Amino acid sequence: MTWVQLAMDLAGVFFFAMSGSLLAARRRFDIVGSLMLGTCVGLGGGILRDLVIGQGVPNAFASPVYLLPPVLATVLVYRFAASEHRYAGALTVFDAAGMALFCISGTQIALEAGLNPVAAAILGLISAVGGGVIRDVVANEDPQLFHPRGLYAIAALLGAGLTSAAESIGWMNAGTGLGIAVLVFALRMVSLRYR
Amino acid sequence: MTWVQLAMDLAGVFFFAMSGSLLAARRRFDIVGSLMLGTCVGLGGGILRDLVIGQGVPNAFASPVYLLPPVLATVLVYRFAASEHRYAGALTVFDAAGMALFCISGTQIALEAGLNPVAAAILGLISAVGGGVIRDVVANEDPQLFHPRGLYAIAALLGAGLTSAAESIGWMNAGTGLGIAVLVFALRMVSLRYR
Amino acid sequence: MTWVQLAMDLAGVFFFAMSGSLLAARRRFDIVGSLMLGTCVGLGGGILRDLVIGQGVPNAFASPVYLLPPVLATVLVYRFAASEHRYAGALTVFDAAGMALFCISGTQIALEAGLNPVAAAILGLISAVGGGVIRDVVANEDPQLFHPRGLYAIAALLGAGLTSAAESIGWMNAGTGLGIAVLVFALRMVSLRYR
Repeated sequence: MTWVQLAMDLAGVFFFAMSGSLLAARRRFDIVGSLMLGTCVGLGGGILRDLVIGQGVPNAFASPVYLLPPVLATVLVYRFAASEHRYAGALTVFDAAGMALFCISGTQIALEAGLNPVAAAILGLISAVGGGVIRDVVANEDPQLFHPRGLYAIAALLGAGLTSAAESIGWMNAGTGLGIAVLVFALRMVSLRYR
Repeated sequence: MTWVQLAMDLAGVFFFAMSGSLLAARRRFDIVGSLMLGTCVGLGGGILRDLVIGQGVPNAFASPVYLLPPVLATVLVYRFAASEHRYAGALTVFDAAGMALFCISGTQIALEAGLNPVAAAILGLISAVGGGVIRDVVANEDPQLFHPRGLYAIAALLGAGLTSAAESIGWMNAGTGLGIAVLVFALRMVSLRYR
Repeated sequence: MTWVQLAMDLAGVFFFAMSGSLLAARRRFDIVGSLMLGTCVGLGGGILRDLVIGQGVPNAFASPVYLLPPVLATVLVYRFAASEHRYAGALTVFDAAGMALFCISGTQIALEAGLNPVAAAILGLISAVGGGVIRDVVANEDPQLFHPRGLYAIAALLGAGLTSAAESIGWMNAGTGLGIAVLVFALRMVSLRYR
């Protein structure tokens, strides 16, 4: 894993952990519940991915650095508490940001593990939506994945597919990655507004 | 894995995917939500099984052909939409069919991976009911597994146990397998009617 | 795994299985549903742990002896049925006992698998709370993990951290283990009473 990939992965963990801590705050869990839910969401999708590619101990357990983003997210949410309405909006933004990063890093990690391009894109999709599904299922909410409003799985699958294609034809670099992430994030946010 | 096993496994994936897409239709998810739920249900039990036996990358990711049944199921459900009442009945039938196939193929795959006969039967049971539990949990329904009405786990465990026994004494062949599948399916459907 | 560890692990499985069977009884599942939920809860946390450390087939499947505690728990709950109120109290006690044992055995097994002390403590925490989260999610309850009332994750994390520290400095023995288990159990039970 390169430094760029690690930074992207940690940023994705942080964004998802923020979405978990925000949901915890909206549901009035205490700070420990917030840390637990943030950690589940932030690390859940990646652990699922690492279990599927069978790489031995998942990154989240091998490197303690993965525990920092959920702690940071919990502290931020509890330090800057806001109105319930703002929680919901911020949750969606952080969730979209996490998804935009994880569909790329998940696909790349799956390709490096030797999966074929189609399977790698599917696993990228699972990394990208897995954490959010765990968040909503554990907190007894209807998963965002199934809301008819807004493109969610489609956006993640598009990002994962583009990543898989770009890697296959050798076009993947920091610029391409950034472009895909921005596209996925924009698609998700715009679709929520105009549908 | 032989061709017969692959065909059975794919048929099981299709049946479970149909149950997921039907639930998605009943819950008014859109077509993407239907594809997601169908894929979760169709592939979830098998991925769980493959993770437990530790065979490396689960079949569902190694062979892209496993993605076809969920796509087919989604198309069929959205093409031939029917009344809500018919959804519920069809869901139960497809779920029972998937269960009848997976309790056999799950047990066989576990035995081939070297598990002892008892553990193989338990893993067959988990393959058979895992997808359905994932479906109901993710969609926030009470799992069919726990409904007091109708034999569910018992039927799956009977099928898995018979498969394990038949393999151990060398009586397993296409006829025995078909017999077990029909028995499990019939037991499930009849128990729903007369209890 | 030593005999002491196996005994502790089986006792933890039994306590969690009791909590699952008690919830099943309260929710009026039948005896099969009770056995299923008890097995999920009793074995879920450990299977999760074994998948993460990548040790091949999880203990729960490798040794059929792990199936006995859930069977025993189901029989006990259905033989000595009591009032709904007593279910809830007993559920909490058994859940706390399972948690107290699993935070220790989970951490030890993770350390033996070569995880660093911090990761081992986190995995101990996951073993200790995983089964209960599965129980509550599958039965559509709000997870105890997130209830603001009573220390839950904190108690489990403390036990896992103390175990990891004691192992690292070579102070772990039967007495230390018993002391940690009693401390975690007491912390959980007392926090429920005075908060």
